[in-house]
Amino acid sequence: MSKYYPLINKNSEFDAVILCDGDYPSAEIPLNILRNANFICCCDGAGNKYIRRGKMPNAIVGDGDSMSKNFKRKYKDIIHIETEQDTNDQTKATRFCINKGFKNIAYLGATGKREDHTLGNIGHLTNYRKEFNIKSVMLTDYGYFVSAQGNCRFASFKGQQVSFFNIDCSKFESKGTKWKTHAYKYWWQGTLNEALDDEFEIKSDGSFLVFRTYLSKNMENKIFK
Amino acid sequence: MSKYYPLINKNSEFDAVILCDGDYPSAEIPLNILRNANFICCCDGAGNKYIRRGKMPNAIVGDGDSMSKNFKRKYKDIIHIETEQDTNDQTKATRFCINKGFKNIAYLGATGKREDHTLGNIGHLTNYRKEFNIKSVMLTDYGYFVSAQGNCRFASFKGQQVSFFNIDCSKFESKGTKWKTHAYKYWWQGTLNEALDDEFEIKSDGSFLVFRTYLSKNMENKIFK
Repeated sequence: MSKYYPLINKNSEFDAVILCDGDYPSAEIPLNILRNANFICCCDGAGNKYIRRGKMPNAIVGDGDSMSKNFKRKYKDIIHIETEQDTNDQTKATRFCINKGFKNIAYLGATGKREDHTLGNIGHLTNYRKEFNIKSVMLTDYGYFVSAQGNCRFASFKGQQVSFFNIDCSKFESKGTKWKTHAYKYWWQGTLNEALDDEFEIKSDGSFLVFRTYLSKNMENKIFK
Repeated sequence: MSKYYPLINKNSEFDAVILCDGDYPSAEIPLNILRNANFICCCDGAGNKYIRRGKMPNAIVGDGDSMSKNFKRKYKDIIHIETEQDTNDQTKATRFCINKGFKNIAYLGATGKREDHTLGNIGHLTNYRKEFNIKSVMLTDYGYFVSAQGNCRFASFKGQQVSFFNIDCSKFESKGTKWKTHAYKYWWQGTLNEALDDEFEIKSDGSFLVFRTYLSKNMENKIFK
């Protein structure tokens, strides 16, 4: 049976939330997921920012680059420094959560600020699925990214904006999308597609990323324009 | 001889600036380039936002989706509607500028807001170089993307943060970067590199994107943390 990816809403539940040090969420859905989180793990500098908002994470994981000596002393019970330089703070936080037994992880604040970090953070989702076999969703203020592989079904709604990013597929066919898909060579080729109804399907032979918006195009135009 | 990519600063000159409808620039370098532009072409909704700031672009190009009837009437002399749906507003604006004879284009406001748009906009740089043979730079609040191919030299400074995104290289070797490069399979693998001195070099057999920051890592930590 093909894997099924449900819609995400403000009541979606996750084992853990990893709060990264990009733009702090400002939309209702990511904010609500953060508010209701069972376990919150902040990436390095995001810990300080989260605490300054009057909250307390369960853990702060990273290379310690963005923490002052004072801060490290004060919050030593929840801080876990990992200095190895082969990966980024988001991946260190992911490993930490996996070691705690969490398998269903929401990433917040992973986009915004430096665009190369944004691209790196999104790109890592493919590896988390492949290497750690976890279910992860990266939520932004506009929608959410998931990493998928092979044949999959995705919950959707009429008018939902959908973008596909091909990682290593040579076959990539869709059912239930406004525009025909193919095994895209360039990033932009799979963007700005649209769901026709409450589900679409992908038949592929490799890894890909899917971005689905919270709102239909009409609603986006009303709210953001 | 290998192609050379200079550093960008607030006095860098371009034939035209294309202002996209992502986040409006807020850093000094993109703002100064916008202020000193010879020709400003806004993508669809960015035109309205630019005018609301008390400025006047030379042209507004797009599918007209984000413009009211009134707005279209009032600014009909500078508005150029292109309804074809095979490409996005940024590409329509690019074609418009090329038809005016502009070959050296700066893109501003192309990142931020919906992340799939951001990815699409960045990804298009490769095509603009390949199809239109233009020199283009996409400037964000943190740094700038360029599309490159084959063997190239890049101006840099010690500590400049550099990220590479492989599009279709099977060979990708660098000189003058902190970390060794290779023909990356995943987006994140080429991120978070660093320039050692005032130039680095890439020897490759295909297309790639390079992001260079305005500031060194130390300066970024001081300003943004």
